[in-house]
Amino acid sequence: MDDALRLWEVVARREVLDRRPWLRVWSEDVRLPDGRVIVDFSTIEAPDFVVVVALTADNLVVAERNYKHGPRRVGLHLPAGYLEPGEEPLPAAQRELLEETGYVAEDWTPLGSFVVDGNRGCGTSFFFLAHAARQIAPPNAGDLEEIAVTLLPLDALVAATRNGQVNVLSIAAAIGLAVAALGVHP
Amino acid sequence: MDDALRLWEVVARREVLDRRPWLRVWSEDVRLPDGRVIVDFSTIEAPDFVVVVALTADNLVVAERNYKHGPRRVGLHLPAGYLEPGEEPLPAAQRELLEETGYVAEDWTPLGSFVVDGNRGCGTSFFFLAHAARQIAPPNAGDLEEIAVTLLPLDALVAATRNGQVNVLSIAAAIGLAVAALGVHP
Repeated sequence: MDDALRLWEVVARREVLDRRPWLRVWSEDVRLPDGRVIVDFSTIEAPDFVVVVALTADNLVVAERNYKHGPRRVGLHLPAGYLEPGEEPLPAAQRELLEETGYVAEDWTPLGSFVVDGNRGCGTSFFFLAHAARQIAPPNAGDLEEIAVTLLPLDALVAATRNGQVNVLSIAAAIGLAVAALGVHP
Repeated sequence: MDDALRLWEVVARREVLDRRPWLRVWSEDVRLPDGRVIVDFSTIEAPDFVVVVALTADNLVVAERNYKHGPRRVGLHLPAGYLEPGEEPLPAAQRELLEETGYVAEDWTPLGSFVVDGNRGCGTSFFFLAHAARQIAPPNAGDLEEIAVTLLPLDALVAATRNGQVNVLSIAAAIGLAVAALGVHP
């Protein structure tokens, strides 16, 4: 499919901000297929992360209400977090589910992986669907946010993508990808 | 729902990178509800953008194959683009659909809006579903990428979220949100 569509070539890159491990920004000069050179195209390195849609035996999603500093609001979220150094996505997903909610689950299925920003990069997001989730421990996130774990049917989460309660892109994507994978009619 | 979950307070912020209109990075000191102050939390300002799922009378999605510099690969995408200064999301969505594909559509429905990065911000994404799309002009994007317009059933796009052909988060989100809105079984 890709033969007629050509890649951009990076001819030079300069670091313009180093806030590792959270953020690193580059300025790149790129040569387009038509020969033009675009100067100072910004690209962002940021940590990869996972997002989990875990369903209980009763078909409820293990969701969270918490404040996030990106939207600057409280909203409905899902278990999610950054990969630790050298960690693979699936164990990271299982670790985040357990840490943030106290739940474990079975039958883990990947729902895809995607670069966060189509132009600038900004890390890769990995999505997982799991079944038979059950709580085995209290939450122990150790994150900065206070998290309230809440069980909701998937159709309520779909409705929350339209009314502003879901306010982060990766959470909306996880809900939509889960609906597509499960073939449910919200 | 939000009474028990408290907000973070920004007590100081410093600009650390100014690449407007594309990117501006701030370092913020934030006070958490428990009184701790987190120093140098990075937040990113980036332009807001729209993504369009437009269906033809034959229920095919107006999709695109093109290179994107975020994933550094060619992939399957949807009509999308940044809001122009002062532009509202719906007219931006209609403009981008026409510019990138030559299509117009009817019955536009919002599918939600979401901050791109839950922790850092990085702009807001606005999603739209439209029906009765028909081509009235050749594409004339004026963008940096070469775009190949392609019509695909929605279930083929869902499959493409799993096999790596859809490689950008906002495109995966649009496909999932459209499936949820349409109640289809891919």
